[in-house]
Amino acid sequence: MDVTMRTAEADKNTGPAIGDTEITDARARAAAALKNAGLVVTDEEIAAMEIADFGLGDLNNIGLEIVVYVNTNRVCAKELVLFPGQACPEHRHPPAGDRDGKEETFRCRAGTVYLYIEGTPNCAPYTRGLENYADYLTVSHEIILQSGEQYTLAPDVLHWFRAGENGAVVSEFSTTSTDENDVFTDPRIKRVAEA
Amino acid sequence: MDVTMRTAEADKNTGPAIGDTEITDARARAAAALKNAGLVVTDEEIAAMEIADFGLGDLNNIGLEIVVYVNTNRVCAKELVLFPGQACPEHRHPPAGDRDGKEETFRCRAGTVYLYIEGTPNCAPYTRGLENYADYLTVSHEIILQSGEQYTLAPDVLHWFRAGENGAVVSEFSTTSTDENDVFTDPRIKRVAEA
Repeated sequence: MDVTMRTAEADKNTGPAIGDTEITDARARAAAALKNAGLVVTDEEIAAMEIADFGLGDLNNIGLEIVVYVNTNRVCAKELVLFPGQACPEHRHPPAGDRDGKEETFRCRAGTVYLYIEGTPNCAPYTRGLENYADYLTVSHEIILQSGEQYTLAPDVLHWFRAGENGAVVSEFSTTSTDENDVFTDPRIKRVAEA
Repeated sequence: MDVTMRTAEADKNTGPAIGDTEITDARARAAAALKNAGLVVTDEEIAAMEIADFGLGDLNNIGLEIVVYVNTNRVCAKELVLFPGQACPEHRHPPAGDRDGKEETFRCRAGTVYLYIEGTPNCAPYTRGLENYADYLTVSHEIILQSGEQYTLAPDVLHWFRAGENGAVVSEFSTTSTDENDVFTDPRIKRVAEA
């Protein structure tokens, strides 16, 4: 959901959503996290920052703060801010039309990220406090990324990720971002406002 | 030139090249610049950092220090370090085979970058100290990027860029990087060691 485009109609269609005060507060917190990570963003980028609550209205548990630097027909680059313990819910990026699925590299810039992908389970995933969503966090091959570490995810691979207790800032380098094509495991999620 | 692959044979083919001491020193200076910019890179990334002198043996004037984060068949992301006044010489990224030309976004993370591209000349370009190369710096539509500012360059557009007097760190988000396809204006330049 692009909150800069929020309308009452969009809110109605995307179900529970956070209010303007919470959005403004989240932008300020995310801006501070970027600054602490040493990443310079402009005032315009902060004002346009997407606060994604995935339609669940539970931002501090399930959510993502996103600065999109560039998203052309070929390449996308973003900064993702995760508050302490905040999780991006499980999803995948399938092929769409004549476009291959999205390929993503996550590079941790600050904090710790717990990334879970398809593959042999190798842990009890970090789901404390996410009991409402546990049924929809199905993959548990864990990759821990500290500052300066990264992982490249192949297209269409199920994944979710969560910040450690100090939050995290992650640079995402990818092919074109088309949020409307993302497939989430949790059927309650609405990523993009419906038309 | 991938200096991690340097061999005596490669040196012979790429003409003048800097020595190992200068390469080691450049890596240390570039690592310090990345740290000052708040960007965390691993020891392995520093050890693999490319010190590109473009075969000219004049690194402090014409050169680039490059950390490649990812370079798949679809997407590339790098950090570019430029020492004070150091310039990346004029070139373009034409289509090659069935691949479109490389599309690049330069995001200045620290310092100041003077980017020159094709288009209406709008300045006397910053060529002080680059007199040996002035004949091959032909485009002079200037775009100045400060920390937090960026520019997306279309494929096959001639461009060169140079750091201001305090140096610069630039994140490059692009399609696949295939250095061997770059076309430089200065015929003396050898970007990649010949086979």
